[in-house]
Amino acid sequence: MRHRRGLRAGQRVDLPEPGKGGSGLPQDKGIRTLGIDPGSRVTGIGIVEGGGNRLRALHYAALRLGDGPFPERLGRLFREVREVAGRFAVDAAAVETVYVKRNVDSALKLGQARGAAIAALVEAGLPVGEYTPARIKEAVVGRGSAGKDQGQSLPCQPADK
Amino acid sequence: MRHRRGLRAGQRVDLPEPGKGGSGLPQDKGIRTLGIDPGSRVTGIGIVEGGGNRLRALHYAALRLGDGPFPERLGRLFREVREVAGRFAVDAAAVETVYVKRNVDSALKLGQARGAAIAALVEAGLPVGEYTPARIKEAVVGRGSAGKDQGQSLPCQPADK
Repeated sequence: MRHRRGLRAGQRVDLPEPGKGGSGLPQDKGIRTLGIDPGSRVTGIGIVEGGGNRLRALHYAALRLGDGPFPERLGRLFREVREVAGRFAVDAAAVETVYVKRNVDSALKLGQARGAAIAALVEAGLPVGEYTPARIKEAVVGRGSAGKDQGQSLPCQPADK
Repeated sequence: MRHRRGLRAGQRVDLPEPGKGGSGLPQDKGIRTLGIDPGSRVTGIGIVEGGGNRLRALHYAALRLGDGPFPERLGRLFREVREVAGRFAVDAAAVETVYVKRNVDSALKLGQARGAAIAALVEAGLPVGEYTPARIKEAVVGRGSAGKDQGQSLPCQPADK
């Protein structure tokens, strides 16, 4: 029986074959990873559970922060990210590294959303990894130069519910 | 006896004359405002207590975040800002609006520090106001076009300790 909570970033783990070795106890769940794409208006969140080279989609949501005062939006983003990470007993978090090609104001707004989101993940006790788009594409599709459409055929089984 | 915790942004309050009307009880303290200048390496924090047109400096610190992984720095910034706001029973927080003239990467880094800091202030239950440098200079020196050196003669009494 392996206890997989508290995984450190970069730590190697022995993932089980999918569908094998599970006793149904919470500590036997696969590694749960929260992926997040923070934005000052909409933040995308997805949680997958792995197992070998298979992943199961547990949760996904678009968190719309509305048009209220910016500090309140950041506070809401923080609270909701921390809440969802706790509710799904997530083990680790992943954020894409950002290449902002737009103007400085956009970078500042995006940065603030990222800062609130990453602080929430660290507060939830999670190791937070940053990955380049090329590395993510390589992991998902097999080629770092793959197009976005190829990445959309995600290697995920939908969750039962 | 006035209870001044939970002040909302924009709410008008009747400030006491300095040195008058205080019973020494915590709820009779003046309005405490935390000013913060977030940065990805060093964050400046100051807390003043007011009192008519007089302010008393309660606390100031330069929070150095070190060279560790960026998410850990953001987590530390979040925790320390929330802790100091709670320790000094702060009523409100103020951040300078930012005009980043440097490149997009700098804006992104600064934005992340601001996002973590502002999320901490909102989590501490504080209204967070953003003020332009011109408005701050006008309040401190009397002229929005004043130089930085003029602002350094702050209208603060040092705290007793």
